[in-house]
Amino acid sequence: MIEAIQNTDAGGHVDAFRAIVGEAHVLTQPEDVASYLTDWTGLYRSTALAVVRPGTTGEVAELIKLCNARNIAVVPQGGRTGLCGGGVPLAGRASVVVSLTRMNAIRSLDPEGRTVTAEAGVVLETLHDAALKQGLIFPLMFGAKGSCTVGGNLSTNAGGSNVVRYGNTRELCLGIEAVMPDGSVINALTGLRKDNTGYDLKDLLIGAEGTLGIITAAVFKLYPAPRARSTAFLSVDKLESALTVLNRLQDHTGGGVEAFEYMPQPALDVICKVFPAIRRPLAGKVATGILVEVASSRPHDGEEMQDGSIRLEAEVMELLGGLMEEGLVLDAMMAQSEQQRADLWKMRESILEAITEAGPAYHLDISLPLARIARFVEEMDAEMDRLGFRPLTVGHLGDGNLHYALSATEGREWNALPLETAKEKVFALLAELNGSFSAEHGIGQSKLSVMTKLKEPAQLAVMRSIKCALDINNIMNPGKLLPPG
Amino acid sequence: MIEAIQNTDAGGHVDAFRAIVGEAHVLTQPEDVASYLTDWTGLYRSTALAVVRPGTTGEVAELIKLCNARNIAVVPQGGRTGLCGGGVPLAGRASVVVSLTRMNAIRSLDPEGRTVTAEAGVVLETLHDAALKQGLIFPLMFGAKGSCTVGGNLSTNAGGSNVVRYGNTRELCLGIEAVMPDGSVINALTGLRKDNTGYDLKDLLIGAEGTLGIITAAVFKLYPAPRARSTAFLSVDKLESALTVLNRLQDHTGGGVEAFEYMPQPALDVICKVFPAIRRPLAGKVATGILVEVASSRPHDGEEMQDGSIRLEAEVMELLGGLMEEGLVLDAMMAQSEQQRADLWKMRESILEAITEAGPAYHLDISLPLARIARFVEEMDAEMDRLGFRPLTVGHLGDGNLHYALSATEGREWNALPLETAKEKVFALLAELNGSFSAEHGIGQSKLSVMTKLKEPAQLAVMRSIKCALDINNIMNPGKLLPPG
Repeated sequence: MIEAIQNTDAGGHVDAFRAIVGEAHVLTQPEDVASYLTDWTGLYRSTALAVVRPGTTGEVAELIKLCNARNIAVVPQGGRTGLCGGGVPLAGRASVVVSLTRMNAIRSLDPEGRTVTAEAGVVLETLHDAALKQGLIFPLMFGAKGSCTVGGNLSTNAGGSNVVRYGNTRELCLGIEAVMPDGSVINALTGLRKDNTGYDLKDLLIGAEGTLGIITAAVFKLYPAPRARSTAFLSVDKLESALTVLNRLQDHTGGGVEAFEYMPQPALDVICKVFPAIRRPLAGKVATGILVEVASSRPHDGEEMQDGSIRLEAEVMELLGGLMEEGLVLDAMMAQSEQQRADLWKMRESILEAITEAGPAYHLDISLPLARIARFVEEMDAEMDRLGFRPLTVGHLGDGNLHYALSATEGREWNALPLETAKEKVFALLAELNGSFSAEHGIGQSKLSVMTKLKEPAQLAVMRSIKCALDINNIMNPGKLLPPG
Repeated sequence: MIEAIQNTDAGGHVDAFRAIVGEAHVLTQPEDVASYLTDWTGLYRSTALAVVRPGTTGEVAELIKLCNARNIAVVPQGGRTGLCGGGVPLAGRASVVVSLTRMNAIRSLDPEGRTVTAEAGVVLETLHDAALKQGLIFPLMFGAKGSCTVGGNLSTNAGGSNVVRYGNTRELCLGIEAVMPDGSVINALTGLRKDNTGYDLKDLLIGAEGTLGIITAAVFKLYPAPRARSTAFLSVDKLESALTVLNRLQDHTGGGVEAFEYMPQPALDVICKVFPAIRRPLAGKVATGILVEVASSRPHDGEEMQDGSIRLEAEVMELLGGLMEEGLVLDAMMAQSEQQRADLWKMRESILEAITEAGPAYHLDISLPLARIARFVEEMDAEMDRLGFRPLTVGHLGDGNLHYALSATEGREWNALPLETAKEKVFALLAELNGSFSAEHGIGQSKLSVMTKLKEPAQLAVMRSIKCALDINNIMNPGKLLPPG
């Protein structure tokens, strides 16, 4: 059994933590800390001197200074919904978990300037709600929204299903406040749309998975809430045509595509098998299944036209009609109510649970240039089939991002399948097609070996130089993101 | 007189350059190099061992390796349209100008994936033309488009008038190829929309003004060409209302605002005085003048409606009518033809020349959070008036970016005015309001002193650590962007 807490505190470190954040906010009892020493995946568990929950940026800075002086590893933590083990300490070194969840204030919201300043511990859904109260949206959207924090979103540059329109967390963030590995505080919470005064430290810290410092607050962009939405499930004739369909939809709606999600037949099958209550959106087999959502803030788009239809929906239907005549779209179902829309999204969001329920699977989070996705899927699906795997793929197709999950073909024994060979095949084709082996989940612990193998050595060398320069004692989330040199 | 070329080449450096790029591409004759040793502003002139014009990324890498080994300063250069002296060598050290203009290939254009891969020396307008041939646009847009290069755009993270919709150069770039200060080549020309595999080196190099390496090529996003445009000149009742007008326009057009340019009365006056052929868009004095352009790729937006009007224009007019009823907009002129639209833009783009013609002026390129612009302008205009200055302001108001030019009030002698005091007042209020002292022009040489004064020491320290770690011998564009520590 793994012990949750490192037993030796010969250095009196825990007392020093208490002096900074107060006794109540330093957790050391096994029952108190257990949940902080693992994450959503359950794959990683470890030990730490303590879990410390600072309440202010000043306290974070003091903690980091202390840890830097005493050579204690600092593991920043948000909502622990990461999928790569980035928020769990490593064994073998005195570590402290710094949980940012107490820093959960929305410091200010500027409805006219359309920005919000939130502390790292704010839960994503809380930010959604705060924006919506002003008729605005914060568009970052994915399944873990009810428990993930914006600090974690920033540290992993989280993506999700609305990236095709609004970008990743990086594009949604205008400025940050952060504590660097020496305890100095960077105050760049400016909310400026243009600022060319030196190196882009904001984007360096975003996606750095806590290895270069702790982001304590950020200014985010807000957008007007849509007045009209049109959500549909399409059966496109083949994956290659999906990009044409996406481009036509984009042009036809003035860039209004908010989601363009790939849901092919095997994914639909596993969802409907595990959750029999979920109804298939289309009768019969789909060729290339796509869940698409278009939205608009234009008041006229939400208005009823003379024939009783809503303008945005009518225009989407008109376009889909044309695409069907051309043979690019074979069948389509449009959500006719908010309930039907919710059902479509429930189906999409249940996929991870369905795959997990259905049996063992290996999850890959990859991306490709848009025009190369069809080739990748065609070649790789055939290759995986030969090896005895059944790919259960869904993906944010509008961003070229596939969640490519390998399960066992029916009748095959998972443990007997050549998983390492399969991964090598995937990574080799990705490298050939200029794809990425981690599109939105990051590196953490779980992707260090593929990082070593596939990341360009020149880029790794630059990253190591930066890490060494900024974190001389290697205290910030050591052993994550960067493989040992 | 300043000599163009450093006379001593005791080290045989020039021969070594010739061995790498070929004799024809190493310029040393004063008449050949003169234009490379100054820039558009004419304020900076210097000397160099030679101007070297590599033709490939491999040649750039060899050059940098050589310079790193021999401790020669490398000054990368694009179209020399920068405004801060970033592309001109400094005296006091053996330097070589590396002009990227021979690397001007568009390596590939993917109309379906909507990306283009261009070498650093491609002129911005050439990229515009290549995109347009495919019915697409590359939306980076400003006056120097006919001579600036995309490499320079990347190095300075150039902005311009379409940022409100499409973002700065940084947001338009998906990936880069770059030569680092040790001569290693980073190949991150992936064109991926999502890629979370380590630190964001792309955004670190973008805006680094050549101090961390040379960007040799990049993948850019392309967008569908608008099918409808609506361009208007508004007299808004006061600057404070402009943000409301912007937000209403954004919501009403589904985020279709492509430009929202501030042009108050003093700017109009100086333009019309210097260029009498330019006609004022509105009769009488304007309160807060705004040049606004809305565009849409939606085919229906470009269609004629039953009453003969174009849909997008009709909707903009409807909105403006409402804003006039509310008293937020006092007067408006809508371009009724492509010629009228061109005239409005010609007026906007002639401002810098008009100010320069009109007499001495000091140009500030600043930005503020959107909601604080009105306060800044009101307070600072009054303060400048007290000091004897007349601010000639224009700006990309949608991004909070003001080009705040200080000229002498009529009847005052420029040389007798307290310019340093004026600058101090501007910078003090900027600091108080969380603004930036360089919104889109960068730092170069001209803003080093204000960088020292106003940039947060903690951020400067991080920047210096990165610079030292990646450019041990300080060969890359030394003396630019970062003030001496």
